[in-house]
Amino acid sequence: MAKDERAVTAQSENFSDWYNDVVLRAQLVDRGPVKGTMVIRPYGYRLWELLQSALDGRIKDTGHDNAYFPMFIPESYLKREAEHVEGFAPELAVVTHAGGKELEEPLIVRPTSETIIGEMMSKWIASHRDLPLLLNQWANVVRWELRPRMFLRTTEFLWQEGHTAHADEDDAMRETLQMLDVYVEIARDWAAIPVVPGEKTAGERFAGALRTFTIEGMMRDGKALQSGTSHYMGTNFAKAFDIKYADASSGGQQYCHTTSWGMSTRMIGAIIMAHGDDKGLMLPPKLAPYQVVIIPVMRKGEATPEVTAAVDALFAELKAAGVRAHVDDRPQVSQGFKFNDWEMRGVPLRIAVGPRDLEAGVAEVGNRLTGEKESLPLAGLAASIPAMLDGIQADMLARATAFRDENIHTVDSWDAFLEVTSTGWARTFHCGQPACEKDIKASSAAVTPRCIPTDGEAETGSCVKCGAESAYGKRILFGRAY
Amino acid sequence: MAKDERAVTAQSENFSDWYNDVVLRAQLVDRGPVKGTMVIRPYGYRLWELLQSALDGRIKDTGHDNAYFPMFIPESYLKREAEHVEGFAPELAVVTHAGGKELEEPLIVRPTSETIIGEMMSKWIASHRDLPLLLNQWANVVRWELRPRMFLRTTEFLWQEGHTAHADEDDAMRETLQMLDVYVEIARDWAAIPVVPGEKTAGERFAGALRTFTIEGMMRDGKALQSGTSHYMGTNFAKAFDIKYADASSGGQQYCHTTSWGMSTRMIGAIIMAHGDDKGLMLPPKLAPYQVVIIPVMRKGEATPEVTAAVDALFAELKAAGVRAHVDDRPQVSQGFKFNDWEMRGVPLRIAVGPRDLEAGVAEVGNRLTGEKESLPLAGLAASIPAMLDGIQADMLARATAFRDENIHTVDSWDAFLEVTSTGWARTFHCGQPACEKDIKASSAAVTPRCIPTDGEAETGSCVKCGAESAYGKRILFGRAY
Repeated sequence: MAKDERAVTAQSENFSDWYNDVVLRAQLVDRGPVKGTMVIRPYGYRLWELLQSALDGRIKDTGHDNAYFPMFIPESYLKREAEHVEGFAPELAVVTHAGGKELEEPLIVRPTSETIIGEMMSKWIASHRDLPLLLNQWANVVRWELRPRMFLRTTEFLWQEGHTAHADEDDAMRETLQMLDVYVEIARDWAAIPVVPGEKTAGERFAGALRTFTIEGMMRDGKALQSGTSHYMGTNFAKAFDIKYADASSGGQQYCHTTSWGMSTRMIGAIIMAHGDDKGLMLPPKLAPYQVVIIPVMRKGEATPEVTAAVDALFAELKAAGVRAHVDDRPQVSQGFKFNDWEMRGVPLRIAVGPRDLEAGVAEVGNRLTGEKESLPLAGLAASIPAMLDGIQADMLARATAFRDENIHTVDSWDAFLEVTSTGWARTFHCGQPACEKDIKASSAAVTPRCIPTDGEAETGSCVKCGAESAYGKRILFGRAY
Repeated sequence: MAKDERAVTAQSENFSDWYNDVVLRAQLVDRGPVKGTMVIRPYGYRLWELLQSALDGRIKDTGHDNAYFPMFIPESYLKREAEHVEGFAPELAVVTHAGGKELEEPLIVRPTSETIIGEMMSKWIASHRDLPLLLNQWANVVRWELRPRMFLRTTEFLWQEGHTAHADEDDAMRETLQMLDVYVEIARDWAAIPVVPGEKTAGERFAGALRTFTIEGMMRDGKALQSGTSHYMGTNFAKAFDIKYADASSGGQQYCHTTSWGMSTRMIGAIIMAHGDDKGLMLPPKLAPYQVVIIPVMRKGEATPEVTAAVDALFAELKAAGVRAHVDDRPQVSQGFKFNDWEMRGVPLRIAVGPRDLEAGVAEVGNRLTGEKESLPLAGLAASIPAMLDGIQADMLARATAFRDENIHTVDSWDAFLEVTSTGWARTFHCGQPACEKDIKASSAAVTPRCIPTDGEAETGSCVKCGAESAYGKRILFGRAY
């Protein structure tokens, strides 16, 4: 690979080109042969596995069981919930032929599984004793995309979708908000992204939901990325699929209240855009496929036996300490190439070991976040790495939090709104009218309401656009979004 | 649930009905709304997760990286390898419409991923330094089934498919056989199934492979279940997808040698049929979702506070000892129901704790494998459970091994062949002619060659059917199969 092939476009120059350069050159993904599809390469998939493992643990801790439902949904099922089919119809992929014949009823490749899971819930739930029913599945889903973007919007993506049924609204809402909290926690504690949780306005709700909650991440270009959602469906799907239970007191038949919630490979896009810089990716240590890369200094493609031995020993010590380490001993590329390559691929710590370092009993440790490098004694180095990684993880969250807070501005005038949303988000009053939301989007660089934040003082005022009385009892967040 | 709904058909009465009863009543699966699809319920999915985790660990240990490739494959890709498309064409599901429009080129829902992965490999491989390329993916695949059977043959199933590219035949064959060994090990050490590894005869090869290897499990009705396969493709797919590398010595372009290997949710069917008995499932402890079920003895739907406290303490101790335990405190069903239910669901150990047991400082421990129950002191009970589970695991493997060996018979005459294959497998000589294989299948209860076993003495003789000189240099295995 020639040097110019390695350089990525600067963020400041063109954020979108930077993103495309980074995802491809860091070997996170490749384009699939069918338009809008992506191949998740080992480096990207390992990141996904680490995120998955953290999230799956929390999903199980909170009492949910994993299951798997068929990907093919009879077309008629989609049509049973009117808003749901209306929302998803333009994005569906349809199987019309199978086993060499035309099918009697076309099959939809799941865009989401409320309908098929609703059908099964109605079979499985009879009594209040069967509730709550707390299910989750890890699956691929398909939504046809006209303007695909790796990780952010692809025709097929991977996700988890939780689906639960409850006896009443209280219990279902408790679940909806609990899973929103789990997403906040995963984003914060694993991805080092200080997302803002809140409720979506009516115009931004999931098709078929009564209430939709979201976590919104601030990307380094000031745009928002919806990174996980949790929905309260009321009895909409229960009525469409006849999900009923005999209640404890009267034994009468009641409709269940259902929820659904999902986080997807889109979250990888969030990690890339919330932390990356002109040099490329910057991965939070807890999710980095390689937390440390060790580079033996070579001459003519070979390291000295002493260097090789020291590198092997360090690798073994790191492995024993639970650190994900990798040795880059490629003979065919230069040390400078390796330094740039791992910097671009976002590895938190890089350790170079050369003959002169060894004589002094040290190794050179480079920090991706600070850009600094220092010589540290080899003795005890491996043992000190976990704390260094924890420090980087905490510093990345602090950096992202500071960036987020610097880029959310409380505004009361339309001019100020336009100004701040060109680089960040506006915290402002809104009348709550869908027509006014549309007007704002059309009169700005496609600025939309991101959420009614869960936090935020009780306040009222005048709508930033139309001047009418504010809704929601507090200021809400607006921004450009992916 | 009424008592008669719980009883399962006896194996001896009708093995097939027994199987259907067990998979549904044990809540491993449910039928999906589209014919031939299955819903994997939490109890079945947990079993799959445990198997997956064991296999994924071995796949990674042996140097493979997980990745994810798109599910939609352009129809033209399938056609590039002639045998491959011929083999799969009758089973394909086809997406013809998406995003509200008819597609220019129909998309195939992957039945397996050699083609799309081959296309990507050709992009990623340039030099001998890129080899071997060792990839695996966990995914759903679709093969339209006319006679579907839960876990064994479903329209959609879950699996892992490994795909690797190598510089030469030697390295590719080493890989093919290494992964066959991994499957043998997983079947033996986790599923307690003493599978027989071997090579498939030409007529049973994977579409597009030069050599196909299999592990064959002996089910309790004497039929065989192919439970995992590993294929050496030669350069067939490399030529179809232009997977080439510059070799180390001359720098000339060479075709890669590729392999693929897969194990699927079918393996759950193997576990069910290799171990179950008239009472239902019998799960190997290492893969049992619940290794121990604790049943507090209740009166009028309530346990005494002492019993509840003892059960809670035992549960906590088991959890701390790394045992997957579950407390069945359902007030609405009887103790007898619970005993039968967990027996049917195959839980290795059942522990009942009642007031009289407590007075004596004991609990009643029931063993699913032996059917025995004994009173054991509560003090130290939890600590002794892991060893008891290991013992059951070993005994299940020993039982299955004895059953397998009792039901494989060395035969030299056609009459003996017919007799032994009505209840088990025949170890015999065959001429190696596909026409003779077909003749055997047609003249028997659909008996087919299962494999040319890896083990087995060098021997020659006359074909059991046509009398011609034997092929393969050893006896091979024949049996009825799923």
